[in-house]
Amino acid sequence: MKNLGYYNGNFAEIDEMTIPMNDRACYFGDGVYEATMSRNYNIFAIDEHIDRLYNSAGLLRIEISQTKEEMKAILNEMVSKMDTGDNFIYWQITRGTSMRNHVFPEKDVKANLWITISPKKIPDIYKKINLITEEDTRFLHCNIKTINLLPSVMASQKAKECGCDEAVLHRGERVTEGSHSNVHIIKDGMLITAPTDHLILPGITRAHIIKTCKKLNIAVDETPFTLEELMNADEVLVSSSSTLCRGAQQIDGKNVGGKAPEILKAIQDEILRKYTEETN
Amino acid sequence: MKNLGYYNGNFAEIDEMTIPMNDRACYFGDGVYEATMSRNYNIFAIDEHIDRLYNSAGLLRIEISQTKEEMKAILNEMVSKMDTGDNFIYWQITRGTSMRNHVFPEKDVKANLWITISPKKIPDIYKKINLITEEDTRFLHCNIKTINLLPSVMASQKAKECGCDEAVLHRGERVTEGSHSNVHIIKDGMLITAPTDHLILPGITRAHIIKTCKKLNIAVDETPFTLEELMNADEVLVSSSSTLCRGAQQIDGKNVGGKAPEILKAIQDEILRKYTEETN
Repeated sequence: MKNLGYYNGNFAEIDEMTIPMNDRACYFGDGVYEATMSRNYNIFAIDEHIDRLYNSAGLLRIEISQTKEEMKAILNEMVSKMDTGDNFIYWQITRGTSMRNHVFPEKDVKANLWITISPKKIPDIYKKINLITEEDTRFLHCNIKTINLLPSVMASQKAKECGCDEAVLHRGERVTEGSHSNVHIIKDGMLITAPTDHLILPGITRAHIIKTCKKLNIAVDETPFTLEELMNADEVLVSSSSTLCRGAQQIDGKNVGGKAPEILKAIQDEILRKYTEETN
Repeated sequence: MKNLGYYNGNFAEIDEMTIPMNDRACYFGDGVYEATMSRNYNIFAIDEHIDRLYNSAGLLRIEISQTKEEMKAILNEMVSKMDTGDNFIYWQITRGTSMRNHVFPEKDVKANLWITISPKKIPDIYKKINLITEEDTRFLHCNIKTINLLPSVMASQKAKECGCDEAVLHRGERVTEGSHSNVHIIKDGMLITAPTDHLILPGITRAHIIKTCKKLNIAVDETPFTLEELMNADEVLVSSSSTLCRGAQQIDGKNVGGKAPEILKAIQDEILRKYTEETN
């Protein structure tokens, strides 16, 4: 198939797929999601993504009908139907289908599983990207990967209109994360990255970067950093599951980073090696 | 019809209605909505609701395909198909159907119009309600009536589990609004209600209450009030389009209000009179 949409056991090309009007995604955004890449039909870091999905669902008290093993089997089965093995794998769980009512539906209403798969490859991660900064106006549950994403939509659009690749969000002086990525800096040979509180998503690539740094003897400081520290960093790193780890060269039109290229490259090489090895 | 679902010109009973999997409502909550009541097949305050919908859409740069008059005609046509004239009328506009991408879709992708209608009547507005308080963790765009409603879902569920009718949200000491209502207090003969900044929805019933107070020579102070002022108010009022205006008798299990029943009743009488007259 050229792309694939799946909903509670039914699947077809995405354009042909429809879902019930009363899925709670439709009017409350009442669901959680995951996204990762496949290469050679191997879904990267699938167990970590599934674990995080169950955690997001648990924090919102959404009961997932599948076991983790069942979900993994469904995802693997669906990716096997694709014409290419290199894809963007997106899936979400929503709190069932019922008449609109803010309170949870009755116990017999089951959660819905959605999947979409479409061809995509990791971009050239060594190509530098450009960023804008934008006030972080999101809710205080950014640790949960929900489909309430309007502020991220608006910030992403603004970045695009500025000719940039991503928006770095900040609450006042404090940098939180990107509109759909985590943001880290290198300063004096150390990786500085915001702690995983309620203001950022615990990114899976973020976790891989931390692990990589420890392997490479690069000290990691999980502490909030400011816009000023961002602008004056030796390197600025942006990470996500679909783009792995890229360096920034400009923020709001000003040159940034470029002062520790060997550290940046060492981290990127290791992240790419892990991705390539595990999807071989 | 016993209930009605509408999507871009097609309609059927809600359970039979499906929508494209790639509507941006489904994965971003990328849409805005309105809700009001009909009585005797007359949709209450329809122009005010349509005006607010266009304003919400404008703030998110969603271009609505219909004119206001066209939208009104569609809503009136759909309500005319119902078995009863007393209904909950819900409608939303979403930013089109396209493959998931945070940035806006191409210009040729049109917004989608959704409507659901189901039988409902205004409750007994003179029956007192019970509330809980809950920290307001929502985003900073509460002036826009979006379908990113997860914090409201969670707060409503908590209220229900506490045996209460609604959750009053607060940012620290400052009361903002209910999870799906506005909250006001009466103190020393005056109505105090939060100003319409980015932290609350500019409620249409809220506007009617302010107008009513002015008519009744009750002074109105649009200023933020605190949890302490809420607990010590002469009366606590909760307003929404589907419940009009009700008084609270308990918050977090403590008795509140009840010290200015004649003012509360005068406001309620006038709100109910307006509703009844305009839907006759």
